Amino acid sequence: MSVIYDRVALIGLGLIASSMFWAMKRGGLAGEVTGYARSDATRATARRIGLCDRVCDTVAEAVAGADLVVLCVPVGAMGDVAAAIAPHLKPGATVSDVGSVKAAVIQAVGTHLPDNVHFIPAHPLAGTEHSGPESGFATLFDNRWCLLVPVEGTDPDALHRLSRLWQGMGANVDTMEADHHDLVLAVTSHAPHLIAYTMVGVADDLRRVTDSEVIKYSAAGFRDFTRIAASDPTMWRDVFLTNKDATLEILGRFTEELFALQRAIRTGDGDHLHAYFTRTRAIRRGIIEAGQDTDAPDFGRVKAVR
Amino acid sequence: MSVIYDRVALIGLGLIASSMFWAMKRGGLAGEVTGYARSDATRATARRIGLCDRVCDTVAEAVAGADLVVLCVPVGAMGDVAAAIAPHLKPGATVSDVGSVKAAVIQAVGTHLPDNVHFIPAHPLAGTEHSGPESGFATLFDNRWCLLVPVEGTDPDALHRLSRLWQGMGANVDTMEADHHDLVLAVTSHAPHLIAYTMVGVADDLRRVTDSEVIKYSAAGFRDFTRIAASDPTMWRDVFLTNKDATLEILGRFTEELFALQRAIRTGDGDHLHAYFTRTRAIRRGIIEAGQDTDAPDFGRVKAVR
Repeated sequence: MSVIYDRVALIGLGLIASSMFWAMKRGGLAGEVTGYARSDATRATARRIGLCDRVCDTVAEAVAGADLVVLCVPVGAMGDVAAAIAPHLKPGATVSDVGSVKAAVIQAVGTHLPDNVHFIPAHPLAGTEHSGPESGFATLFDNRWCLLVPVEGTDPDALHRLSRLWQGMGANVDTMEADHHDLVLAVTSHAPHLIAYTMVGVADDLRRVTDSEVIKYSAAGFRDFTRIAASDPTMWRDVFLTNKDATLEILGRFTEELFALQRAIRTGDGDHLHAYFTRTRAIRRGIIEAGQDTDAPDFGRVKAVR
Repeated sequence: MSVIYDRVALIGLGLIASSMFWAMKRGGLAGEVTGYARSDATRATARRIGLCDRVCDTVAEAVAGADLVVLCVPVGAMGDVAAAIAPHLKPGATVSDVGSVKAAVIQAVGTHLPDNVHFIPAHPLAGTEHSGPESGFATLFDNRWCLLVPVEGTDPDALHRLSRLWQGMGANVDTMEADHHDLVLAVTSHAPHLIAYTMVGVADDLRRVTDSEVIKYSAAGFRDFTRIAASDPTMWRDVFLTNKDATLEILGRFTEELFALQRAIRTGDGDHLHAYFTRTRAIRRGIIEAGQDTDAPDFGRVKAVR
């Protein structure tokens, strides 16, 4: 593959940024990649492991001359970072992000950016429960979706170029409108994460069952929840606070359904339960057929993290 | 290893029974293993793949002369199966089961068995989302817990012998009182399964998000829920109907906590969310340290199912 951007700046050096770096290197997609992280320790780690061609001590230095700047910070920090980089952006540059929420990020970032740059929000649907600069790997985006959420008046060439970068990093690219994105993700990611966090918290609280029993006898089901509930607390706090309406809507529906199933358990309505559990199997088959998971319960990520 | 039971009968030939057969063969733990399943198709499949040394067409034939009979049917079917085998049991035989609920099984099975057999309920904490005679594999129980739930007056020798069998199949063995077992499992398995089923059902219902979007963009979180929600509907219907009180108690606590988190989202209380999400990380670390999951998200089962 050939170079798509001469210079790329990654702001924030966690799981996604570090995976983007390794994926761009794998594909030879960027000339020079600069990186910036707010924490001294993260920058030191990045330098030690060779993450980014050049790790910068200021955000101004990192974005200077960059053709593409990608904001890889928690959603709640996007606005401040956009304000900080705005005076230093190269005219004609593209600014993108990888946040899990789009409407709030467009609002927070869009207001700060000058008119002479292209702002193209993005969201790669890929991740693990691990975080930090050492958690990234080149194959994270392979065969995963990256959703581009272009705002009104987006330059088609700039959009096409960013799309080529994500394809080069292994992703399938689609575009979606911001509000719809936030609803779809509330269903497929945000509500499930809150639910997993809640269930793990309940287990931790229960005095009649000891923590060691919960841990020792954690069966399939709970064990999977604990993995989800090990995800980065700051990232997820920001997701829920910025995708508030869609998340609360889905949780409301979830509670309704849960109450109906609880009533079926209480009244002994086995037919209702059996029919419900049969229906949910079909969705699983669909996901496997769509290539977004394997029949083997490894989430298609084992090779990468081993 | 040496033979622990000369003859073992497996009643019901799904994931657990088929895994027990392959694990017993691997360890040379049983002389002859007979098998029975109610469905003609299941018995035919078992014969075709060599599951059991002898597949019997009647339950009476399967248990005749058996030193150990293991009931591997859904919890709701245990009572009827116990009634069917009772007249044909060899005096001194041990009868056990692998049901996910113990108090209800003890009630349902215990009333049918003659006094001259040993009844020792058991529950191996192992499984996958797959079911049926072809889903079993010899390593399913390796390093997993099997909980024995002895009833009053259990013969220590019979208990020790069954314990040795499970250890020979790779499991760690512990004993637990029936009601406590049912509460612990409600937390670590039953409530999480109902929650996963519910969330997948919600996604399927939502008209503003299409099924194909749910499938295509299923991110980590939801994807894991769909795997849990692909588990056997009959088995899980019976679990909820027979472990009603403990499951409803845990779901009640879950709903309370979920409402508190929803309120934190609604009011924008980021500190509450962040503190909650940080606490749940510790449980995950405990499970990995206890060897019940790996840091790589493969649930320790990839080798087995590949």
